[in-house]
Amino acid sequence: MTIAALIVAAGRGSRMGGSRPKALLALGGTPMLGRAVGAFAAHPRIETIVAAVADPEEARAALGADASRVTLVRGGAERHDSVRLGLEAIGGSEIVLVHDAARPLVPRRIIDAVIEAAERHGAAIPVLAVTDTVKRLREDGTVAATVPREDLRLAQTPQGFRADVLRAAYERAEGAGDFATDDAGLVERAGGRVVTVEGALVNLKITTPADLDLAEALIERQARAKHRPHG
Amino acid sequence: MTIAALIVAAGRGSRMGGSRPKALLALGGTPMLGRAVGAFAAHPRIETIVAAVADPEEARAALGADASRVTLVRGGAERHDSVRLGLEAIGGSEIVLVHDAARPLVPRRIIDAVIEAAERHGAAIPVLAVTDTVKRLREDGTVAATVPREDLRLAQTPQGFRADVLRAAYERAEGAGDFATDDAGLVERAGGRVVTVEGALVNLKITTPADLDLAEALIERQARAKHRPHG
Repeated sequence: MTIAALIVAAGRGSRMGGSRPKALLALGGTPMLGRAVGAFAAHPRIETIVAAVADPEEARAALGADASRVTLVRGGAERHDSVRLGLEAIGGSEIVLVHDAARPLVPRRIIDAVIEAAERHGAAIPVLAVTDTVKRLREDGTVAATVPREDLRLAQTPQGFRADVLRAAYERAEGAGDFATDDAGLVERAGGRVVTVEGALVNLKITTPADLDLAEALIERQARAKHRPHG
Repeated sequence: MTIAALIVAAGRGSRMGGSRPKALLALGGTPMLGRAVGAFAAHPRIETIVAAVADPEEARAALGADASRVTLVRGGAERHDSVRLGLEAIGGSEIVLVHDAARPLVPRRIIDAVIEAAERHGAAIPVLAVTDTVKRLREDGTVAATVPREDLRLAQTPQGFRADVLRAAYERAEGAGDFATDDAGLVERAGGRVVTVEGALVNLKITTPADLDLAEALIERQARAKHRPHG
């Protein structure tokens, strides 16, 4: 099946402080969006890469040479608007991988696993087990209860779908005005089956300056490992 | 009030592979337990440090000079056994901070905040917001539902308690044979009020080799920041 990556990169990133779109913030000298584009561009099966950004001209300037590897479209006010606008730009691709630019360190093995599971089952997401105890809070910030965590998972991206499955879920959600915090949520609400594959810690979502610092630490370590002499 | 730290370090860490107790694995050349001991030993208000370990002699050898800063006691088969045995060794301390050795990078500001809130409210835990979408899975690994995450938090340690509050919660739990994955859970079940303070990403729990790698990356980055010339 033909495969497209749709990178959602229009968010303001208010928790990062600053006014620059979050996806254009530099991580190890490269904008997060450029890293995400690079991860999908390096995959031999991905034919089309679309990124929904706040301002295509600003993104083009920030991406430099990487801009030639991606079709930039203007995103919308909400995440789901951006996905819908991006879906219009992926053409006839049969599989679409929707990815948040805020996860710039997505490893190849996750892209592989999501593609394989999406082709087979129609909808697939990478997830991580929850190793911390989970609490539900009251409005006053005190603990209401401990939530059993055995069957809980933290969802990551890319989330992979047969394009017809995702388009139908979006049409249904728009009719109902009922959106979710991720794309799989819409497929779930439409009664679709979403399978899971193993995510990775390194595929963290960058939401705060502390997350960005952690990601910088990871890529510095990766760079040193790469340049370390063998033996 | 007088304050003790009780470090739980008896776990096998089966997800780390290897047979060595997890708390004795080196992180940046220092056993995780030694780092945790150092964090509490550096705090001017903490008078007593107890660590419940699998084998006190093995721990003493691994800790080297840090062993003089901590009372080592033999832990039990389960985490709650180790906490109970540790509580017997903290003497008359009025506040106890129960900490997992698997969180070796606990920052000073979290220790401060937990002490202050525990003194004031009797029970306090550091928590982090959940920035990933949360899914509940069926037994077959497919997604059953998306879980609203606004009022969910990930609990960290140290968890701080008035010692009488924690002892009473443990007595009640032992009577009922009803334990939790963290200490606050026992206080909650006893009807106690648990307040929350802001945790930190750097206070991550090391459960898998990927977590250890992330922690190594963080301390390497901290070390470089410290040695970087100003200006």
